[in-house]
Amino acid sequence: MDSTRYTRGQETLNRIHGHIGQGVMDALDDIAPDFARFIIEFPYGDLCSREGLSPKERQIATIASLVTLGNAPSVLKAHIQGALNVGCTREEIVEIIMQMSIYAGFPAAVNSLLVAKDVFAELDAEDQI
Amino acid sequence: MDSTRYTRGQETLNRIHGHIGQGVMDALDDIAPDFARFIIEFPYGDLCSREGLSPKERQIATIASLVTLGNAPSVLKAHIQGALNVGCTREEIVEIIMQMSIYAGFPAAVNSLLVAKDVFAELDAEDQI
Amino acid sequence: MDSTRYTRGQETLNRIHGHIGQGVMDALDDIAPDFARFIIEFPYGDLCSREGLSPKERQIATIASLVTLGNAPSVLKAHIQGALNVGCTREEIVEIIMQMSIYAGFPAAVNSLLVAKDVFAELDAEDQI
Amino acid sequence: MDSTRYTRGQETLNRIHGHIGQGVMDALDDIAPDFARFIIEFPYGDLCSREGLSPKERQIATIASLVTLGNAPSVLKAHIQGALNVGCTREEIVEIIMQMSIYAGFPAAVNSLLVAKDVFAELDAEDQI
Amino acid sequence: MDSTRYTRGQETLNRIHGHIGQGVMDALDDIAPDFARFIIEFPYGDLCSREGLSPKERQIATIASLVTLGNAPSVLKAHIQGALNVGCTREEIVEIIMQMSIYAGFPAAVNSLLVAKDVFAELDAEDQI
Amino acid sequence: MDSTRYTRGQETLNRIHGHIGQGVMDALDDIAPDFARFIIEFPYGDLCSREGLSPKERQIATIASLVTLGNAPSVLKAHIQGALNVGCTREEIVEIIMQMSIYAGFPAAVNSLLVAKDVFAELDAEDQI
Repeated sequence: MDSTRYTRGQETLNRIHGHIGQGVMDALDDIAPDFARFIIEFPYGDLCSREGLSPKERQIATIASLVTLGNAPSVLKAHIQGALNVGCTREEIVEIIMQMSIYAGFPAAVNSLLVAKDVFAELDAEDQI
Repeated sequence: MDSTRYTRGQETLNRIHGHIGQGVMDALDDIAPDFARFIIEFPYGDLCSREGLSPKERQIATIASLVTLGNAPSVLKAHIQGALNVGCTREEIVEIIMQMSIYAGFPAAVNSLLVAKDVFAELDAEDQI
Repeated sequence: MDSTRYTRGQETLNRIHGHIGQGVMDALDDIAPDFARFIIEFPYGDLCSREGLSPKERQIATIASLVTLGNAPSVLKAHIQGALNVGCTREEIVEIIMQMSIYAGFPAAVNSLLVAKDVFAELDAEDQI
Repeated sequence: MDSTRYTRGQETLNRIHGHIGQGVMDALDDIAPDFARFIIEFPYGDLCSREGLSPKERQIATIASLVTLGNAPSVLKAHIQGALNVGCTREEIVEIIMQMSIYAGFPAAVNSLLVAKDVFAELDAEDQI
Repeated sequence: MDSTRYTRGQETLNRIHGHIGQGVMDALDDIAPDFARFIIEFPYGDLCSREGLSPKERQIATIASLVTLGNAPSVLKAHIQGALNVGCTREEIVEIIMQMSIYAGFPAAVNSLLVAKDVFAELDAEDQI
Repeated sequence: MDSTRYTRGQETLNRIHGHIGQGVMDALDDIAPDFARFIIEFPYGDLCSREGLSPKERQIATIASLVTLGNAPSVLKAHIQGALNVGCTREEIVEIIMQMSIYAGFPAAVNSLLVAKDVFAELDAEDQI
């Protein structure tokens, strides 16, 4: 195991996703433990930990990509939460998704706005407890 | 014609793409003049002219989306030039594309890096004249 | 607000989707009211209201596109209902989806046929009340 | 060989694509002769020869699908020519492509309009000879 | 009806999917009986019945394709079961999906691993009865 | 630099792609040297070097994925050559691509067969020198 990359990736994962990121890793751990490790080491440890873009700018790029893919709403949900964690506002997230209608079409944008609406509603519900 | 949206869109188009944007509009004008107008009015006039994200943040989202689509290299080229025009550095553009390997895969990222390489080489060649 | 485009778009939206279209607009209105307005103004007011293709031909093209995208079943569902509203028969809708197996593959066609089956079953259930 | 399906498919292929369709079949014949046969038998013989949609409606659906895919410009070109052969006008083809900006995004629509422009220019050049 | 192709396709369908494949065919039969027949005749009868690749190699290619599409989890599920039926191990299926992160990105791979996890859990539950 | 992963990845890259792989790495080295290194370390060093699938089985999965993506013909070309290098025959490669018509549609399969035809013709031309 590559401890520097893993430690750095774990820190970046925690900063973006908090304890929810760990939940996904645990779900993968049963079926593909090496892949759970690779996710921490490569996307989080090698790429998302780099300087050159701010964490907020990286989340903008990530949300744009996931809205464009249009087929991974649960991953999009995790990254909308992550974007809020690194300093994006709800309004900015809505702006990014709206803009994606240009490149990825309206169905992708509409579906992604409804995912964002769910995330925001869950956060509001948690706040009320 | 909706003159406010058109004027605002034209200004945004010019700020992002300069005279190159006009070339694409002219090419479309022969075959679909209404569509050329729609592009200026809707994506540029309605969406990309909005506040809520900085021009640089919008170009980051746009490049992320076009790398993810992976099938529009000439549009990506225009938006890499546009990103430079609104304040992204070459290094930042390379970072965005690299990060897209996570969500859209390595072929999309590699092909897009080669598009960026072409854009940068053309700009260097222009500078040397 | 651009009242001509909005009014024209609202009429086209109603003609295609009936009251169901309004439900989607209301859901978007909470999170992105400008985008709800844009959807009425641009896709419905600017594009789908145009002459040059009949409403039925436009729905054929829309269903073909949504089957090909393969990742927006709820939007496809709304447009299958819309196709019936503007004069497509169930048999024609099934034909369009079957034909898409050629370009978009069998998984896209099979999943879309099951969406159509749901739409038709819901309509039959409503008729029986 | 399934002679009924093959004969029916060959007739449909010829009606849509003329001698150009045969060129593609010949190119495939060297490397995958069974696949060239399958294309004539299944998409053309089984599906596109069916009643239930007019040939023009089928080409509308095909163009919508290929614009949405966005990664097969040479196939799109062949089907734009085919659409003209079965009775679509140039204006109708432009309308279909414009409408696809809604579902597949503007890059897909812009690139496809430029493909249509090429097809129309080639036809005009042939006419002038 | 083309009885040789149909019979051969039915045998191949049964070998890969067992009685589950028949369930999908029955669901399609209500809405598009010709298409249910085409699926047995063309993908199963014409293509998947061919020599030139082993059944296991064909399922490897199929799973790779479905993970890459990323928008047909129920079809992927059926083909993971099919891969086990023709001799792939669970470990091999996990390896194929992991490898797809390279070409199709991590969201596609993660979502597909969770589909595989569901399939394996269902099989374990059946074994315990 | 992670020398074990890099060395292992370089060996796997060489075994699959020979000197052509190095050419792509050199092209990326100018614009994104870290990414060139990541490609060797992660896809080749971490994933494609794993046991659990034979090199031939991995190339089958890779070709299936690239045909399905449909937008990276130069990467597909490199992996067709790679498949031949690790023991796939031309006939097997043609079979994989033909099969992809089921999941990714005929345009993707046709375009990929023409890429394979180019690769085979280049190899034949080299042999004649």
